[in-house]
Amino acid sequence: MQRFCTLAFVLGLILMVFGLTYIFPIATSLYFDDGMTNHFLRGMSINIGAGGILAASTMRFRGDLKTRDGYLLVAFFWLLMASAATLPLLWGIPGLSFTDAFFETMSGFTTTGATVLVGLDQLAPSLNLWRHELNWIGGLGIIVLAVAILPLLGVGGMQLYKAEIPGPVKDSKITPRITQTARLLWLVYVGYTLLCIICLYLAGMGWLDAICHAFSTLSLGGFSSHDASIGYYNSPAIELVITIFMLLSGMNFATHYTALHHASIKPYFLDPEAIPMLGLVAGSILLCAFYIWHFDVFPDFFTGLRYVSFNTVSVATGTGYSSTDYAKWPAFIPWLILFLSGIVPCTGSTGGGIKMFRALLLWKQAGRELFSILHPRAVNPVRIGNTPIANQIIFAVLAFIFLYFISVVVMTFTLMFTGMDPVTAISAVMACINNTGPGMGSVGPAANYAHLNDFQTWICAITMLLGRLEVFTLVVLFTPAFWRK
Amino acid sequence: MQRFCTLAFVLGLILMVFGLTYIFPIATSLYFDDGMTNHFLRGMSINIGAGGILAASTMRFRGDLKTRDGYLLVAFFWLLMASAATLPLLWGIPGLSFTDAFFETMSGFTTTGATVLVGLDQLAPSLNLWRHELNWIGGLGIIVLAVAILPLLGVGGMQLYKAEIPGPVKDSKITPRITQTARLLWLVYVGYTLLCIICLYLAGMGWLDAICHAFSTLSLGGFSSHDASIGYYNSPAIELVITIFMLLSGMNFATHYTALHHASIKPYFLDPEAIPMLGLVAGSILLCAFYIWHFDVFPDFFTGLRYVSFNTVSVATGTGYSSTDYAKWPAFIPWLILFLSGIVPCTGSTGGGIKMFRALLLWKQAGRELFSILHPRAVNPVRIGNTPIANQIIFAVLAFIFLYFISVVVMTFTLMFTGMDPVTAISAVMACINNTGPGMGSVGPAANYAHLNDFQTWICAITMLLGRLEVFTLVVLFTPAFWRK
Ligand SMILES: [K+]
Ligand SMILES: [K+]
Repeated sequence: MQRFCTLAFVLGLILMVFGLTYIFPIATSLYFDDGMTNHFLRGMSINIGAGGILAASTMRFRGDLKTRDGYLLVAFFWLLMASAATLPLLWGIPGLSFTDAFFETMSGFTTTGATVLVGLDQLAPSLNLWRHELNWIGGLGIIVLAVAILPLLGVGGMQLYKAEIPGPVKDSKITPRITQTARLLWLVYVGYTLLCIICLYLAGMGWLDAICHAFSTLSLGGFSSHDASIGYYNSPAIELVITIFMLLSGMNFATHYTALHHASIKPYFLDPEAIPMLGLVAGSILLCAFYIWHFDVFPDFFTGLRYVSFNTVSVATGTGYSSTDYAKWPAFIPWLILFLSGIVPCTGSTGGGIKMFRALLLWKQAGRELFSILHPRAVNPVRIGNTPIANQIIFAVLAFIFLYFISVVVMTFTLMFTGMDPVTAISAVMACINNTGPGMGSVGPAANYAHLNDFQTWICAITMLLGRLEVFTLVVLFTPAFWRK
Repeated sequence: MQRFCTLAFVLGLILMVFGLTYIFPIATSLYFDDGMTNHFLRGMSINIGAGGILAASTMRFRGDLKTRDGYLLVAFFWLLMASAATLPLLWGIPGLSFTDAFFETMSGFTTTGATVLVGLDQLAPSLNLWRHELNWIGGLGIIVLAVAILPLLGVGGMQLYKAEIPGPVKDSKITPRITQTARLLWLVYVGYTLLCIICLYLAGMGWLDAICHAFSTLSLGGFSSHDASIGYYNSPAIELVITIFMLLSGMNFATHYTALHHASIKPYFLDPEAIPMLGLVAGSILLCAFYIWHFDVFPDFFTGLRYVSFNTVSVATGTGYSSTDYAKWPAFIPWLILFLSGIVPCTGSTGGGIKMFRALLLWKQAGRELFSILHPRAVNPVRIGNTPIANQIIFAVLAFIFLYFISVVVMTFTLMFTGMDPVTAISAVMACINNTGPGMGSVGPAANYAHLNDFQTWICAITMLLGRLEVFTLVVLFTPAFWRK
């Protein structure tokens, strides 16, 4: 019982703090006089009130959070936040169902960036800011999840990253570690966000758009305040700024912290993921640029390169902006970049999917196995950087990939079972589980998820959360072993 | 040098023996007077002649085949046989390119059963028999591959099956083991084929069709002498006979042998794959039958059940017959059964794909990992039946699946790169790597592979061989480690 009280206490506190963030849409609503002020004020009161009651009523029964409570904490964190955040949308957008509102907020918090709303350009500015803020807050949560919680839980080989950030915490209490790690990395995240806002403003965006898009860039969320996404601006400068910040956000924030702390770029070379990630993205851009040049989609090579670069970085990092309807390009490119979104984002970034380190580890393990069927007795450990990786971690990574793959298959067939066409189904699942956003077919970059029926919408929302919590964290809650004493 | 001479000697002998099998199409051609006799006689002479020269010229330099030569043996076996078998097709079908002929024979030998020929009903009877015979001979090769060679090579965890068939061979010499194992299992294969011929005849097929379809049923090849495949007969009796024999052929022939040897059905229950395989197929049939009933595709439930049963067993076992154009059914069913073809066939069957035992092992490993993130210190070995499986084998299986998955991704993107649409590309790759045959889109059950361009045709042919040789066996030939002393 005590663990549930502790959990409820922490969640109550989080809800209260979350309530404070309503201040930004309130200010926006007041400034633009868009009539949403009361909705946000009401939402704020309910959040702070409900959070306060939850925290106050469980306070005297609380203890320390133990490792295993981490699973419940993160699952309920995302579910609770997404539910709470629906209120302003439900009040502000007449006719919006709870299913669609929940999809939108879950898409926000998981930084998926898929939307069920049409007519974003006509949406009240404060509601648009709200959507982008959800992206940004989701990013805050993901950094903590990736750098502090998952390594502690040992999900999918993340125990590799246990000692990444130096700290005094050696026992299994989860709270101090979160606090300390969060402080350092959030500083980087906030700093980069401010920098991105300024750059976007200088590149020609208005202040509100600059804030909104900086929020969804740093979080790799990919929400936009325009139906045409970044294509709305048709500005190479804006595309360049966003491209750079998407690449930065696709890297490990711990590496950014170390690099800034030591004022050195060496940490990027020591990071086993950064260079392969940049290399893979650069190689894919070149390949696609020549490919699209061959098909004469754009008047010249460099125009093609511009569009290929932006959309490749956007989709491959799992952001999901588009600067044109790339689904109309020869199918090889959109499918390649959608596939890349599963492996390009690095651990400790705000991206999703399998992640670069697991893809690297898997690749090396396959090579080791190829070698070992020729030399069965040779000892040949898998290394990432210079570190030999224990079999236990390789197993965890392989199991993660397998569970991820099962999830893709099961969710795709579930969507097809509801009558969805195969192209839309598989791409929607890839786009949701990788927290990318736009898929192909009827959920492509020029379309959205609005036409899905309720059941399909819920399946997609669950898939986003599944991807965000690295599958295991959520699936483990449904095992009897978890609930046994 | 000696190893290559030994290899050439063995391949020469095989080519000579293969030459003898031209006797069947020659007899057919004489009987039906279809004008192909000379083509087959010429092919026979060239096969026996070339094989004889190869064997005679390398005979005095030959030694024993070593384990590692197994990789070269199987790769060259399939390549050489497929090349040799093109001759009658090239002579007998005016205008057929070598690419298409090679695709057809490779499809035959790998028991994929995909075809580039249109107008099968009008094809000379001897040429149709020839195609089916390739299926059947391919099946002979696969049984040896699966039960004698791959376990010895230790490919993809197949070392598990090393001691399956008792025998006196304990050293690394490959020849005696092949001979001995082959004799026992081929006996079962030949016996079942004869039984299947008789049953098909009794069910209403003519003798030639019965022979042809027994050949492509037992081998799970799926070639048919009719463009409409088994739909041509519209006969529940024929469908029932074929369904039963497809299920039998999807099981381990070593289990059949043991069951027949002891006149007991107990071996099927001891076989860790047989029951899960039958259960998975039965469950899928039920699910699909109710699903298609809901969509009112057929006038009543039992008509639907009949069509669903046949096509599900056909595709899931990797045979690839069709009794109707199931691609027109709600997409969930054709994609599900195509996916199943990757996991339904058992080890030691004539089917392809990942195979049932690897799917089971993977499933259990994921469960173990799920348990172990909660109990990191608990020892909890994966078991298949009652046997605990060594980590080394689990690694080999996981690496196999990963390499298989990489192959699917690389081949799919390669096909899409050539401009093929995503649905056709992914389904063609799945159908080829699982040795199933028909895919979806423009390579669906009512269509064929004739419209592919040469490059696409080669990619598909390579994918078939890749799947048939369980990926590793072929890929290892391209590693420097293989060619090092
Ligand atoms: K995204
Ligand atoms: K087949």
